[in-house]
Amino acid sequence: MFELHKTADSTKARLGTLTTDHGKIETPIFMPVGTLGTVKAVKQDELLEKVKAQIILGNTYHLYLRPGCDIIESAGGLHSFIEWDQPILTDSGGYQIFSLSDNRELSEEGAEFQSHIDGSKHMFTPENVVDIQRTLGSDIMMILDECPPYPCSYEYSKESMELTHRWEKRGRDAFLNTEPKYGHQQFQFGIVQGGTFEDLRIESAKYITDLDFEGIAIGGLSVGEPTDLMYEMTDLNTDYLPEEKPRYLMGVGKPANLLHAIARGVDMFDCVLPTRNARNGQIFTQNGYINIRNAKWKNHHKPLDPNFPTDICSKYKMSYIHHLFRNNELLGLQLSSLHNLTFYLWLMEEVKERIAEDTFHDWYKEKAEILDTKI
Amino acid sequence: MFELHKTADSTKARLGTLTTDHGKIETPIFMPVGTLGTVKAVKQDELLEKVKAQIILGNTYHLYLRPGCDIIESAGGLHSFIEWDQPILTDSGGYQIFSLSDNRELSEEGAEFQSHIDGSKHMFTPENVVDIQRTLGSDIMMILDECPPYPCSYEYSKESMELTHRWEKRGRDAFLNTEPKYGHQQFQFGIVQGGTFEDLRIESAKYITDLDFEGIAIGGLSVGEPTDLMYEMTDLNTDYLPEEKPRYLMGVGKPANLLHAIARGVDMFDCVLPTRNARNGQIFTQNGYINIRNAKWKNHHKPLDPNFPTDICSKYKMSYIHHLFRNNELLGLQLSSLHNLTFYLWLMEEVKERIAEDTFHDWYKEKAEILDTKI
Repeated sequence: MFELHKTADSTKARLGTLTTDHGKIETPIFMPVGTLGTVKAVKQDELLEKVKAQIILGNTYHLYLRPGCDIIESAGGLHSFIEWDQPILTDSGGYQIFSLSDNRELSEEGAEFQSHIDGSKHMFTPENVVDIQRTLGSDIMMILDECPPYPCSYEYSKESMELTHRWEKRGRDAFLNTEPKYGHQQFQFGIVQGGTFEDLRIESAKYITDLDFEGIAIGGLSVGEPTDLMYEMTDLNTDYLPEEKPRYLMGVGKPANLLHAIARGVDMFDCVLPTRNARNGQIFTQNGYINIRNAKWKNHHKPLDPNFPTDICSKYKMSYIHHLFRNNELLGLQLSSLHNLTFYLWLMEEVKERIAEDTFHDWYKEKAEILDTKI
Repeated sequence: MFELHKTADSTKARLGTLTTDHGKIETPIFMPVGTLGTVKAVKQDELLEKVKAQIILGNTYHLYLRPGCDIIESAGGLHSFIEWDQPILTDSGGYQIFSLSDNRELSEEGAEFQSHIDGSKHMFTPENVVDIQRTLGSDIMMILDECPPYPCSYEYSKESMELTHRWEKRGRDAFLNTEPKYGHQQFQFGIVQGGTFEDLRIESAKYITDLDFEGIAIGGLSVGEPTDLMYEMTDLNTDYLPEEKPRYLMGVGKPANLLHAIARGVDMFDCVLPTRNARNGQIFTQNGYINIRNAKWKNHHKPLDPNFPTDICSKYKMSYIHHLFRNNELLGLQLSSLHNLTFYLWLMEEVKERIAEDTFHDWYKEKAEILDTKI
């Protein structure tokens, strides 16, 4: 399913192709997040034609609660329900149980939780999140894990990692003993944990590698730890992961974070940041990011960057976009969301070109610094 | 500027072309409302290419307050500010003063009001709303009028109409004594008032006709009166309006209202209804309207109407659109707004075809009844 084409000389950056029954994904790749089966404020045809998204995410926790598995199953699966004929990855819901739900209770069996919507009680186990994702029919499903907070003691991190490992073994077995429902193949990715402790990260990488998932995610990062520590743990993890499997750094991040993580051997990313921040007026550009709500744009009657092919950069005056945001007009959210995702996918194309040309090493640090600067 | 091509035999329905420097408008026409310089949730390219809008509205009251005339003037006018190179009509702000602002006070001079946003004090006069609309640079500007409520006494209606007439004379003079600012021609439409009293409506139609505006609007209707009374007053007014001028029924309405008003000789319409109701889940179809939030659509895994060429009708499952609305997803608002406007403009094309073929008379009443039925 994954073909590694190249590893860069002076960094660990890689070029690869991930092949699913819904299409190929050229890595490194960013995956727009469509929590409830919609990437907020962006239409499916725009995702395909303008953003050039190759794969999007759905959230198991959210979709399980709303609209529910019965609806999605009777609609013919998630691809059919949302009319997206390209690859979909679904997370396991583990992260949402810990970040959103009330009164969650962890046991060896799984995680019991109350819905954040109506307080109803539910149980996720390593086995039933496989079943749920069989029903969703995602091309890539994630294993159930526990994602501990940061900071976190060594002892808790170790115990949590060990529970996650037992869950991952059970989840892998459940996956191998069940079949897809809609005629297309599904893959399962494991998740490395271990907090911010080197020995645990190494132990986890080895354990998860042995379970022979189709791909491996680095979990438990981007949860509040310093950025350098996130890079350090990522770097350590990829040293212990097999070359021939795709690596996915979950929940990351800013454009600069992506470049640094790619240099450390990561192939796949997802994050709500480009769309969530877009809705707050943060716009990414080739020369840094701006806040369009800032008064400095009120009288700026030129497009932001005529050389970047989105409506927000090359068509509309900054003053107009500023006006839309100051008046809470939906068009502002639509344009900024579409723009930021287009920017993220464009950045991945730039990265691929530079890895192919062996210029990534000389380029990425300076570029990351520029992209991380507020204009 | 207006060429009348045809008046139907058995109804007063007309076909015409209104020519502005930003393009031609084939009447009967519906004009999407872009209050603050954006038709809510619909992108300009979609308005042009999918909705096939020929002209949109901006609101003088709103644009004057936000972003303000200085910003729009320095951006080169409203067309340039919002990147819409097609015709624009701006209302005079009169209606908003009465419906939105606090502490309005009417005098012979004009209307003093407090902004609904920050309480600041402002004065609109027949002369300065011409100046403001010269700065906006709309292709068609409206005269300042008073729009009395319904019900309203004969005495108040008469006094209000007489004040409006004096204002309209002053506004017409101001228009004739000022010049456009951006190199394109502007037209000015007068507004007939007179409440729901036949003699006042006739008197007003005659008075406004004599002022020789480029077009004439029927105002003061669709403010709460029974629908039949609205039709009756419209019918009466068009009998007293010149054949060679376009007639615009302000703030109307539902699809059925448009058909009945066209049969009574109206050429132009505007209304927030298709977009506002779209955001509440009301979707218009060829066979009636639906409320997509209704539980009956939860498990309806088919598109609504494969023969109608919008995403909401022919692409997405009703269950998915229902899911988007139940979860307040922006995509629901985008798809429904785009759909309803496309439906309104499609309806105008149907109307024109039937007037041209002399089949409008036999078609419109039954069609109006179907369109007004909840599915």
